[in-house]
Amino acid sequence: MDMLWSGWGDPAEAAPLPDTVTALLGELLGVRPRGTGAPTLDDLRVPGSPLDAAALGALADAVGGADGIRTDADSRIRHTRGKSTPDLLRIRAGDTADVPAAVVLPATHDEVLAVLCACARHGLAAVPFGGGTSVVGGLAPERRRPFVALDLRRMTGLLDLDPVSRTATLQPGLRAPHAEALLAEHGFTLGHFPQSYEWATIGGFAAARSSGQASAGYGRFDDMVLGLTVATPEGTLDIGRAPRSAAGPDLRQLILGSEGAFGVITAVTVRIRPVPETRRYEGWRFASFEEGAAALRRLAQDGPRPTVLRLSDESETLIGLAEPAAIGSAAATDTGCLAIAGYEGTEEETAHRRAGVAAVLSACGGTHLGAGPGERWADGRYSAPYLRDSLLDAGAFAETLETAAFWSRVPRLYAAVRGALTDTLTEAGTPPLVMCHISHVYENGASLYFTVVSAQGADPVAHWATAKHAANDAVLAAGGTISHHHGVGTDHRDWYVREAGPLGVAALRAVKRRLDPEGLLNPGILLPVD
Amino acid sequence: MDMLWSGWGDPAEAAPLPDTVTALLGELLGVRPRGTGAPTLDDLRVPGSPLDAAALGALADAVGGADGIRTDADSRIRHTRGKSTPDLLRIRAGDTADVPAAVVLPATHDEVLAVLCACARHGLAAVPFGGGTSVVGGLAPERRRPFVALDLRRMTGLLDLDPVSRTATLQPGLRAPHAEALLAEHGFTLGHFPQSYEWATIGGFAAARSSGQASAGYGRFDDMVLGLTVATPEGTLDIGRAPRSAAGPDLRQLILGSEGAFGVITAVTVRIRPVPETRRYEGWRFASFEEGAAALRRLAQDGPRPTVLRLSDESETLIGLAEPAAIGSAAATDTGCLAIAGYEGTEEETAHRRAGVAAVLSACGGTHLGAGPGERWADGRYSAPYLRDSLLDAGAFAETLETAAFWSRVPRLYAAVRGALTDTLTEAGTPPLVMCHISHVYENGASLYFTVVSAQGADPVAHWATAKHAANDAVLAAGGTISHHHGVGTDHRDWYVREAGPLGVAALRAVKRRLDPEGLLNPGILLPVD
Repeated sequence: MDMLWSGWGDPAEAAPLPDTVTALLGELLGVRPRGTGAPTLDDLRVPGSPLDAAALGALADAVGGADGIRTDADSRIRHTRGKSTPDLLRIRAGDTADVPAAVVLPATHDEVLAVLCACARHGLAAVPFGGGTSVVGGLAPERRRPFVALDLRRMTGLLDLDPVSRTATLQPGLRAPHAEALLAEHGFTLGHFPQSYEWATIGGFAAARSSGQASAGYGRFDDMVLGLTVATPEGTLDIGRAPRSAAGPDLRQLILGSEGAFGVITAVTVRIRPVPETRRYEGWRFASFEEGAAALRRLAQDGPRPTVLRLSDESETLIGLAEPAAIGSAAATDTGCLAIAGYEGTEEETAHRRAGVAAVLSACGGTHLGAGPGERWADGRYSAPYLRDSLLDAGAFAETLETAAFWSRVPRLYAAVRGALTDTLTEAGTPPLVMCHISHVYENGASLYFTVVSAQGADPVAHWATAKHAANDAVLAAGGTISHHHGVGTDHRDWYVREAGPLGVAALRAVKRRLDPEGLLNPGILLPVD
Repeated sequence: MDMLWSGWGDPAEAAPLPDTVTALLGELLGVRPRGTGAPTLDDLRVPGSPLDAAALGALADAVGGADGIRTDADSRIRHTRGKSTPDLLRIRAGDTADVPAAVVLPATHDEVLAVLCACARHGLAAVPFGGGTSVVGGLAPERRRPFVALDLRRMTGLLDLDPVSRTATLQPGLRAPHAEALLAEHGFTLGHFPQSYEWATIGGFAAARSSGQASAGYGRFDDMVLGLTVATPEGTLDIGRAPRSAAGPDLRQLILGSEGAFGVITAVTVRIRPVPETRRYEGWRFASFEEGAAALRRLAQDGPRPTVLRLSDESETLIGLAEPAAIGSAAATDTGCLAIAGYEGTEEETAHRRAGVAAVLSACGGTHLGAGPGERWADGRYSAPYLRDSLLDAGAFAETLETAAFWSRVPRLYAAVRGALTDTLTEAGTPPLVMCHISHVYENGASLYFTVVSAQGADPVAHWATAKHAANDAVLAAGGTISHHHGVGTDHRDWYVREAGPLGVAALRAVKRRLDPEGLLNPGILLPVD
């Protein structure tokens, strides 16, 4: 099934806002319902494909026939940009400027190499396309030449499973639930559950350094990757002979996060773990975000470490965003900050760990709320993007951004980003509600994930650009990284260049030029075009 | 204090072999005492420095005066090659072919930049020098042009310590015990204890991806690195704003393992942990290496995980190498395989962990041997290089090599490397004793560390070159990495090129050319000269 062209996920799962929430949006943020003028897919006008017969023929040859090429409007629209709020607002407004010239569907590593070769010969760019879930402009390349969306949906195999080493080799087009199902047949799990879980792919996780909601227990996706096969215009990279090595720089870490700009990931060898016997999620309440953050830090540094560990700030707790099903209901009377601690593993091990965590959280001022909030969080863990669609439909603007920093910088980073978002959007006439949570913890720092809701105002895309610009500046000024798990894409590129520094960017450009001398892979994504 | 020019460490610590061991060497391996013709430092002839007055002046200017330059024979000999057995045999034979033109002693990041600039202007190469403990030819560059040893011994500061984030920023010339002492003043430890601990430096650990004996608990050095400052001929790289990030490839992982070929590491921000309340090391016996390895795998995969975890094979156990103080004594009557499990942390936490480990090891067939073997291992944990000197003095040849692989490949890798070493050295007329241990475990694999002892034979350097060549081939053929923690240097370079593959090498060369266009940094180390 294809993702909804104008929003998130499966249209059948769409969840209209309860009247209480609509009323709340009006009272709190001045959100007014929009007209019903949104276009349907049939209303969208897409320019004719700029590919000539020779180019189409070469691409078809690369993928074993015309059956592997799509040039119809529907396919091209569904491969246009990603799923950031500006992306959705643009496509809903009928803006098809970023539409690919064609969608190509290689089924093997060699076909990917052949597609890249055909692109080079015909002056085309190629944008690897997995789940299409980028929220940072990672699918909208610089437009000096036509581009094809290189959709990996035909590469969905489990190529190898080694139960002794606990490794599996997966093809890049596998969506996460499908990968989990294949692994579960052997009793294993990857343990990677980002919010995009239902749609995002293995290749995308690797290319963009995804981090899942159970990262406290399972690690980030880049922690799980043991080997990579990469198709580049200059040939194949095959990396990873051991869990760790002192044989030179870690080339895996050069491809992870390269966002398709260095090559197309065609196989990923990952660490797998036994399917847990039990999963248990619970709520805790802290008097303040500061107190809760200190408790999370203590667990991250001294253990024991839950599998899931997150903490909503006062605003997010008040609105109930941590438990989407409860938004606008009883949660609105709550005070303080809600934390979720989850445990996955064997019955015995999780019982012990849970007791240890409870002792620490209690000692840090936490109040145990039992399983209720944990179960509600788990039920709604993938529903926020659906909620965003409903908010957009209701005339609200909703978007997220995220960063990470060392622990000592977290308070300043939190205040700086909150302040930047609040000030710029208020100045634009759409005072926002800014909510935040910590969802990934490390010994030495944590991530901050912000959600912003406001009225759309006259020009929400432009307003958001201003606010996002100010927030990005604030992130860098406060010592944070421009992205903890969304990636760079085009939206973060200018700040990424500042973060990596001129020489860091120069080193990456040198790699790019060597692997992709024509610059055909994702031009303008991650790195500026030369 | 300087390291012994012809061997390891502090000459006062030298430990002559007990007569029982000398007798054992004679009986077992046909080792015959060598003549006493070894040269003293004064006997060594060193060519005059090829540097002209202009070059010396430029280097002196770079480091704030002539006081920062050494061209005397003693200094140059002490910066010649590293500490592999062939290195020692060569220098003991009076071979000074690899002597640097001068030793320069920058005291700051800017002085390092200035030294690189002076080298570029005067056609010199530069070899960063920390503890001088490389065992893979990492200090002997290609000799097309003169080189200076860029000794970092003046850069030994603790630049920053953040107790909230648990990070510290250290200068590269700090030897590990000095770094530990500085951190201990604040109640922290790095937890990095490789065999080279007493001499190796922070910069060297980072440049060569060191792994310490407590890696099961503290991780590898590359796990500990959160930030790096690097001086390159093209300027400064400053990397690491958060524990983890999705902002592009991880540039830290491009510098870690670059062995000085991309730049000189001038500051390292590391993760630190509280000094443990308690340290406890114990012995376990397994009937076979296979059974012991299965037990280690179970701990690595399912926990609990000791802080130290190692397992000697039958030969190493029989000889008693895991407890150097016991070599040739009672240990020789032992059978099976000795494992060491160590615990560091709080009293309460280690007690619980120790009980959990004991349950697993018992269930896996292990017999608890109590604290004796553990304490003996801990006492001798840094003594093996001294033991090697005594073996060389006694006419024996002794060397080590190491690799790592995914668990399912470990048995084949073990057999292949053992076989290659045994066959080639037997064929050369010096049948060896080959011993092995697992000293670093991961969820998905483990390292294998081999020790080889034989008679020296007529030409031990040449014999070893043949044996090492065969072992390296065996490592790659059996799916291992060419180095788990010794690095690439020059000795592993040809195999590293095969492991990384042509495109991987090409990508790294592109980085090298961008950061070091004149190729002045460590020419021929890590990567072949263009």
